[in-house]
Amino acid sequence: MSRKAALRFPGAVVDCRFEATPRDLSALAPRDAAVIVTDENLFTAHPSYFKGWNTVVLKPGEEYKVQATVDTIIAQLIALRADRGFTLVGVGGGVVTDLAGYAASVYMRGIRFGFVPTTLLAMVDASVGGKNGVDVGPYKNLVGTIRQPDFLLYDMRFLTTLPEAQWSNGFAEVVKHACIRDAAGFRTLERYDIASIRKDRRALSELIERNVRLKSSVVRRDPYEKGERRLLNFGHTLGHALETQYELDHGQAVSIGMAFACRLSEDLLGFKDTARVCGLLQRYGLPVDAAFDPERVVGILAMDKKRVGGKMNYVLLEGIGRGVMHSISVDALQKKVRAAAGG
Amino acid sequence: MSRKAALRFPGAVVDCRFEATPRDLSALAPRDAAVIVTDENLFTAHPSYFKGWNTVVLKPGEEYKVQATVDTIIAQLIALRADRGFTLVGVGGGVVTDLAGYAASVYMRGIRFGFVPTTLLAMVDASVGGKNGVDVGPYKNLVGTIRQPDFLLYDMRFLTTLPEAQWSNGFAEVVKHACIRDAAGFRTLERYDIASIRKDRRALSELIERNVRLKSSVVRRDPYEKGERRLLNFGHTLGHALETQYELDHGQAVSIGMAFACRLSEDLLGFKDTARVCGLLQRYGLPVDAAFDPERVVGILAMDKKRVGGKMNYVLLEGIGRGVMHSISVDALQKKVRAAAGG
Repeated sequence: MSRKAALRFPGAVVDCRFEATPRDLSALAPRDAAVIVTDENLFTAHPSYFKGWNTVVLKPGEEYKVQATVDTIIAQLIALRADRGFTLVGVGGGVVTDLAGYAASVYMRGIRFGFVPTTLLAMVDASVGGKNGVDVGPYKNLVGTIRQPDFLLYDMRFLTTLPEAQWSNGFAEVVKHACIRDAAGFRTLERYDIASIRKDRRALSELIERNVRLKSSVVRRDPYEKGERRLLNFGHTLGHALETQYELDHGQAVSIGMAFACRLSEDLLGFKDTARVCGLLQRYGLPVDAAFDPERVVGILAMDKKRVGGKMNYVLLEGIGRGVMHSISVDALQKKVRAAAGG
Repeated sequence: MSRKAALRFPGAVVDCRFEATPRDLSALAPRDAAVIVTDENLFTAHPSYFKGWNTVVLKPGEEYKVQATVDTIIAQLIALRADRGFTLVGVGGGVVTDLAGYAASVYMRGIRFGFVPTTLLAMVDASVGGKNGVDVGPYKNLVGTIRQPDFLLYDMRFLTTLPEAQWSNGFAEVVKHACIRDAAGFRTLERYDIASIRKDRRALSELIERNVRLKSSVVRRDPYEKGERRLLNFGHTLGHALETQYELDHGQAVSIGMAFACRLSEDLLGFKDTARVCGLLQRYGLPVDAAFDPERVVGILAMDKKRVGGKMNYVLLEGIGRGVMHSISVDALQKKVRAAAGG
């Protein structure tokens, strides 16, 4: 039996099921008026899950998180004669859920949608909070909307086929949540590692639920990212810039970004636990340094959505579990980035 | 001096200025953080209006109301380094305002935007109510969002260059509003025609304000088109189907659709004023009949956004000023369309 939870957001309640099964999906989305969006990897790895459903199967990978893929999804919805009564279900990682959520938000000016996140990263982060969208050239998530899904199903079966590197990828966001808002969660993470938590199904399920609830509560208090929600960008400003320029996973890029933000927090706020954060990141297989070309990264930072005028709000730590926003000039930030670029 | 009005919608107030001037635009959108979207015709006809503004100039015409044009607008916003503090201003007819509103709704997940509608049709209809979006193949407005603009400026100068056919086009929506909700407005329209109202600037300005307020009040009570707002589709179901298949202006297509809906209202509700509605449409240069291929139109109707399952909610009239929703099976509707197709 799945555990139900109602995640509340302003103007929306998300029907959330932990330890979900295919039966939950059938209950929430009528098969004759639903379309699943997924990718080739999942469709091949879990054929029984998709049997009997209308399914749009995308090529896997961030390089397909672009408008052309949204156009394809919409063409297939038309071909299936999907009307306003249809539900779109994104079954996949963050790329699939971002694409499905965006397509559902604009098709016929918005149809019902839900997600079955299949990676740890998508479970604890991408599927929660209503942000969706696509990349434009080197700019990540430059186009999209904010709209909550109608439901979220956490089906642990998908973690059985999750590639090793994807575990680290997800833990980058788990560590992020702990750093900005959850000192107790940080200490729990220090007692596990990827191998031990994968064996402890109950601990893993609790970890997912704890992170979903933490992110939801931040988003509930600030759905349009005017204040507290911006803390969720911890490690992501530099992280996104690196990710678009180098062959890095999202988690690796964010991990390097968090380590950079910790050092910036030392300089600007007297933060003292950089070594502890870096130690935890490395414990979960994540890098804390990288050599990169500062000029490529600096150019991307100048187009960051968080920039307004010559300033950027940067997320720093006062302590573990205590993230804060700090306004920093783009010039000063660029100097720090150039200094860090040596790796 | 412009007349100010605050149009209220759930969660949004639109700053509205009748008899607006360029000064109103400068007051509402800071030039160094604004981008105007317009089309080549307007840019050529009113060069002084655009002087000193960042401007994206589109090719004119409904055939450019597609995703590729939105992609172009977004590419230009990136090239201008537009950040979240920017305002996008659509200066044009419904095609331009729909494109600008949609681009602004998804760029960086939503930036501020306002409209300066330049055709009578856009003034009384397209600019009001927050619907935006693009066509997909033969399907009008299949993709988009609903989001209110921050401001609406009604600058009468643009009507001085409005082509003759565009006056009829706008009056189709004016007659529509009168038919569904404004019997007094209907009688006023019977006392004017296009030539006489163009000479009476005050009557024209009052007519625009009356129609903006009427549409706003319908949308305010039902922003997501669950009930009353659906009345605004009067004449549009068949109208859109005809418009995508034949070389008809929107107003001409809707006019034929309204005449068809009047006859359907006679059959189903005992409506008695078909001749009076048709007379008024013709008075404003609009057609009430057309010969068309019923099978082409029937195929489009089957994909209408208003269809759910085998039924469609169709807007009929009980009397002049009294529009009502009426559920009709797609089969029955298709029979009526086939019967009407002879013209």
